[in-house]
Amino acid sequence: MKKMDYQNVKGTQDYLPAQEVVRRNIRHTLEDTFILYGCKPLETPILNYTKLMASKYAGGAEILKEMYTLTDRGERDLALRYDLTIPFAKVIAMNPQLSMPFKRYEIGKVFRDGPIKAGRFREFTQCDVDVVGIESQSAEAELMMMTIDAFNKLNIEMLIQFNNRKLLAGLLQYFKVPQLKINSVILILDKMEKIDQVTLLKELEEQNLSPTTIELIKHFLNANPTIAYFEKYREENELIKQGYEELIELQDYLQVLNVGESCVFNPFLARGLEIYTGTIYELFLKDGVIKSSIGGGGRYDNAIGGLIGSEEKFSTVGISFGLDVIYTAMEQRENSADQALVDIFIIPLNTEKEALRLAWQLRQQGNRVEVELSGKKLRKAMEKANRENIRKVIILGENEIHTKRYEMKDMQTGEVEQFEIL
Amino acid sequence: MKKMDYQNVKGTQDYLPAQEVVRRNIRHTLEDTFILYGCKPLETPILNYTKLMASKYAGGAEILKEMYTLTDRGERDLALRYDLTIPFAKVIAMNPQLSMPFKRYEIGKVFRDGPIKAGRFREFTQCDVDVVGIESQSAEAELMMMTIDAFNKLNIEMLIQFNNRKLLAGLLQYFKVPQLKINSVILILDKMEKIDQVTLLKELEEQNLSPTTIELIKHFLNANPTIAYFEKYREENELIKQGYEELIELQDYLQVLNVGESCVFNPFLARGLEIYTGTIYELFLKDGVIKSSIGGGGRYDNAIGGLIGSEEKFSTVGISFGLDVIYTAMEQRENSADQALVDIFIIPLNTEKEALRLAWQLRQQGNRVEVELSGKKLRKAMEKANRENIRKVIILGENEIHTKRYEMKDMQTGEVEQFEIL
Repeated sequence: MKKMDYQNVKGTQDYLPAQEVVRRNIRHTLEDTFILYGCKPLETPILNYTKLMASKYAGGAEILKEMYTLTDRGERDLALRYDLTIPFAKVIAMNPQLSMPFKRYEIGKVFRDGPIKAGRFREFTQCDVDVVGIESQSAEAELMMMTIDAFNKLNIEMLIQFNNRKLLAGLLQYFKVPQLKINSVILILDKMEKIDQVTLLKELEEQNLSPTTIELIKHFLNANPTIAYFEKYREENELIKQGYEELIELQDYLQVLNVGESCVFNPFLARGLEIYTGTIYELFLKDGVIKSSIGGGGRYDNAIGGLIGSEEKFSTVGISFGLDVIYTAMEQRENSADQALVDIFIIPLNTEKEALRLAWQLRQQGNRVEVELSGKKLRKAMEKANRENIRKVIILGENEIHTKRYEMKDMQTGEVEQFEIL
Repeated sequence: MKKMDYQNVKGTQDYLPAQEVVRRNIRHTLEDTFILYGCKPLETPILNYTKLMASKYAGGAEILKEMYTLTDRGERDLALRYDLTIPFAKVIAMNPQLSMPFKRYEIGKVFRDGPIKAGRFREFTQCDVDVVGIESQSAEAELMMMTIDAFNKLNIEMLIQFNNRKLLAGLLQYFKVPQLKINSVILILDKMEKIDQVTLLKELEEQNLSPTTIELIKHFLNANPTIAYFEKYREENELIKQGYEELIELQDYLQVLNVGESCVFNPFLARGLEIYTGTIYELFLKDGVIKSSIGGGGRYDNAIGGLIGSEEKFSTVGISFGLDVIYTAMEQRENSADQALVDIFIIPLNTEKEALRLAWQLRQQGNRVEVELSGKKLRKAMEKANRENIRKVIILGENEIHTKRYEMKDMQTGEVEQFEIL
């Protein structure tokens, strides 16, 4: 085989031990936090019917273009999942016996055949929590608190930006943006923090809005609006009223929960357009190593009902973290290569069998033990122990077996302890 | 959407919380054991170049038929991995800087578009350990010891059957089975425990072997051969000699390691034909709920070198456990549905915000806490606590907030403890 043939597919990568240890820690920290918040584990397949993944209540046209599709031997049209939300909705749909509210987490691979950048891959791992069956903003507040808790444990400083989908839509309606253009305008306003205002206004003008409307939007953009800013508009239409009241309720929660400082209202936040119906939020790193969001989510009350063709309302709120983008952030910050993955290294001198037996005993006590079995000379073996930062080393010769005693040397302090072979 | 559209793809399934908790425990027990044995984590992509997966040093013709293939937007020919061995070999090939021996574990999804039976799916999770760089049988012995350790922790009684690929091939050569038919005959002998001897002999006769050869094989089948049986043949050819000596070495290890009882020599074990070059082993449940093997592996010294087109020898030994088949075995044994997934249930009576705040404090102490946020009446909420076996319940009313004291009731003992709200 030529070297060409065993490279990785573009947009995928291997994680070697030094990297994977960091990823494992992230995964475990998130999972342990989810569990403390009463989330239950769920595992769904990667292979799905294309028809399910392409449902109009699913990820939307942009994502569908990036979907990997295939046909199996039974001529079924299949697709690799591109998120964990649709599979979650499917599980709710297929299992009417589940008691509500149902709060689950899932950590798993998803696939998108799209553009690649720092921390963004075509095959990547998402860590999702979704809860169905809670109408009040308490669901959003709890997920935001959980997020802050998790990132504190990861020692990553981040900010949650939040908004309410109804508010912006209602305001643009009040500004007399034509109904058909509201989504396009929201997407333009979402670029607020990414592009300069001249470009942004130019994009708005291309929408052929009336001069009055443009003027009103311009005024809004420059007002640096807080939640309170919207109070004067609350009676103008039902969307603004609902959005405003939900935001006030959420803000009350965040204050009592003492997490207000990590949560910032951003009236221009849009977070795509497809499924969200109320609160939306996105997570950003404070130190700005990665500019794009490292997670996000919101309320999507219509997706599950729509998917199963039911009139029943399924109040649903979710949040999703990108393991790869969190990993990329941590990788740039800390050097994990020095972390020891083995506690005790046993070097046998013609005592391989007894060394493996001793290793078994030490492992029963919870030690991570490696036995040198590749026939390395003592000096080479010691070099390996050093290189891998293994703290304790045992040299097991025939004399040790004979006297049933061995020494364990602490490579950091130089201390030597004696033990009996049982 | 019609109900049809949100079913699972044949050969895949969802794992609901009661099931997934069991699977999570299996995964963690295996992973923790692997780590104690000095294994390092590795994560490889599911998407691979078809050319890599179809290499002749890979899974062989049977598996290739079951490979899921697809084309991405860049017109690349891709395949979903069908095992974790080829991705491991690829990593060794791509990373010559890795220091040997290299012992890694990987737990991940693999895909095979093949027949389905109990515990066998088209999308399933494998848990693999492979070590490259150890020539002696100590590598096999350590993996077998690790396996016994892991299954002891899972409280699953199992047996490891082992054999040596060289032994059987050498013996058949000595019996004058034509070189081209040796593999077919090995595959027939592998059915020894699955079909009756009349059928087996009939299949052998269909191979058009000489009457003397048939007679010799028949005699061998009825000899109930132990390792010692082969001593008299050891000088007959190099394969028998090497196989015999490796088996004796392995047996010595197993005896010193005190695991001989769980390891049984099976001279008819074949374990497919493709990549193994020496020791092979398969794991079987003792209670026989699942007849087929729940894991297995062996030595494959030629695969990595072959894959990268190198003359260098890569001594490699691996073992693989099927998470789904282990789960199926455990599922049939124990009822996990009664396991509580939440420690404390807080029922707020118009005190949602304070309840979430109290929940945060209790979670910081390591409790799994759920707050009733869906507006259930007290009686319904208590029913939920009972149904889900939640041990402790707090009812948080306005009076509790006012007096800054609350009661926590142990639902099992009826005991009530008082606490202050901080």
